[in-house]
Amino acid sequence: MSSTALISCEQAERTGIAALVRAGVPETNARIQVDLLLEAEMRGRASHGMLRLPRVIQRIRNGVASATSEGTAVWQGRGLLSVDGEQGLGPVVALSALSQITARAKETGVAVAAIRNNNHLGMLALYAERVAAAGQVIIALTTSEALVHPWGGRKAMVGTNPIAIGVPAQPTPFVLDMATGLISMGQVHDYANRGKPLQPGWALDVNGDPTLDAAAAREGAIAPFGGAKGYALGLSFEVLVAALTASALGTDVRGTLDAVHPCNKGDVFIVIEPACGGIVAPISAYLDLLRVSPAADPSRPVIVPGDRAQSQRARSTQQGVPIAPEVWRAIRDLAGE
Amino acid sequence: MSSTALISCEQAERTGIAALVRAGVPETNARIQVDLLLEAEMRGRASHGMLRLPRVIQRIRNGVASATSEGTAVWQGRGLLSVDGEQGLGPVVALSALSQITARAKETGVAVAAIRNNNHLGMLALYAERVAAAGQVIIALTTSEALVHPWGGRKAMVGTNPIAIGVPAQPTPFVLDMATGLISMGQVHDYANRGKPLQPGWALDVNGDPTLDAAAAREGAIAPFGGAKGYALGLSFEVLVAALTASALGTDVRGTLDAVHPCNKGDVFIVIEPACGGIVAPISAYLDLLRVSPAADPSRPVIVPGDRAQSQRARSTQQGVPIAPEVWRAIRDLAGE
Repeated sequence: MSSTALISCEQAERTGIAALVRAGVPETNARIQVDLLLEAEMRGRASHGMLRLPRVIQRIRNGVASATSEGTAVWQGRGLLSVDGEQGLGPVVALSALSQITARAKETGVAVAAIRNNNHLGMLALYAERVAAAGQVIIALTTSEALVHPWGGRKAMVGTNPIAIGVPAQPTPFVLDMATGLISMGQVHDYANRGKPLQPGWALDVNGDPTLDAAAAREGAIAPFGGAKGYALGLSFEVLVAALTASALGTDVRGTLDAVHPCNKGDVFIVIEPACGGIVAPISAYLDLLRVSPAADPSRPVIVPGDRAQSQRARSTQQGVPIAPEVWRAIRDLAGE
Repeated sequence: MSSTALISCEQAERTGIAALVRAGVPETNARIQVDLLLEAEMRGRASHGMLRLPRVIQRIRNGVASATSEGTAVWQGRGLLSVDGEQGLGPVVALSALSQITARAKETGVAVAAIRNNNHLGMLALYAERVAAAGQVIIALTTSEALVHPWGGRKAMVGTNPIAIGVPAQPTPFVLDMATGLISMGQVHDYANRGKPLQPGWALDVNGDPTLDAAAAREGAIAPFGGAKGYALGLSFEVLVAALTASALGTDVRGTLDAVHPCNKGDVFIVIEPACGGIVAPISAYLDLLRVSPAADPSRPVIVPGDRAQSQRARSTQQGVPIAPEVWRAIRDLAGE
């Protein structure tokens, strides 16, 4: 593997869009999809970055992702938008739904989108950030393939089921984005590729026994974060999302990690309009108090969720993004460059 | 301390209601408050049980809890109910708001209650269970005094901020109810009373240094559950609830643990009506699959959140509840028995 060069964001966006357009995606949709991946890359979340673009194109070619669909949305009452994603591109369907519910919440105070049959959303933080920057509060949930074992269990039966929460604040919105696995399967693969051992408690092998061997963990299960509580929380998101979207559950979930299965997980966005515009100043002051509060290790200040992503994004805007050479080569090939 | 006898649920309810009525609470409100405490007791959650009744009465006497208020609720749009609890009894205000939003969600698909100036709700699971048993999905959040230190920090600056999630399932609804602290301050006090050491990583002393001394931890801080992720999650709940309820933040929060301060935390309920009644059968089947899935320790089967509370409640209905003798004596005194 050769060393990773920095690609300018403009170049990455242009080439990424060209690759999608060449695969039959209308330019508007291509830009939405690429910007989502690129913004993740810019925030240092390579696992949700440009790496995923070749698979998106593979999925379009295999007929399990639609280049054009924005999904079909039906209001169930004034506040609940039920969306069949019709296998559209994840961010295309999601942002279409989000624009409808953010507008509706301004009028009703709250609106929810429950989305099924949609492809991978990418990094949830981006949706949360967008909504919170516009002055609304958001909870975003999505499910995934079963990769996490129940607390006290031996088999992967629960998704990594991330949650994002966005709340208006200054100078930037408060944005949480976390999966409910202790580590990600992407990290497991990364450790396996580098021959690095896992830490105790991180994963089980295919037989359900604890393992430090990352290669063995790929076929096994990762632990929930936070023990019994984290398991309970991830499981809650699995059943909450399924109840609202009629999505698949547990080991029936497919299509966010492969190029061949229709994607049958669910996505839920809850958008709330704070009465009287909320309390941005006190929240911002509180977050600042946390940032300057005494740290256990003075060289590592207390941080607030989203801080690291923001500073990484500022660096990326200046310096470009470190896309792995083989990924960048593949994307350029797909773009015909 | 003498040994704890089992009190029948009927007796506990009758005496508890009598104590509240004697303090000026109308019988309807007294029943609501006592039933909430008693149901927690019946599920094995003594920290949220009858133990709290004398303090409720103390708060009424001190003028920081109202015996009669149900709060004043104003709809902000069709979906968002903004409630000033006016220092009413926590469950009285909460259930009044909940009955309004559950009815509204049947029509609009979703409704939210954002409650400020309300007393302690008690065990969140009870609200979640009630809503989910009636076929709706609920997310319930409430904040608390700052007892939890930021991840990497030394000072208690975040509430224990619990979340409850209820989803319809058979034979009983799925109910998560968890705080975002690694342990509860109630546990710390219990360890201190028994002279038992804490485990490493559980708590800091008043100077922000790690301690195993439970007595020292009472003046310090408890750790967030799940490390950095759990801190991020608990903090998210703190700012989300504050944004929607204009409640106090961090160390400004008062009144859920003492008898003298008006209670200035916030409560948020989000109720969603699943389209087409949801997918109760597949969710119930999935939960059953988890329960029979292979366990790391065959003597400790995998459990689903709420299972233990349900079996404990069944036992309590038969056998009564183990109220500590001094608590029971105090309640009987307050009831004039």
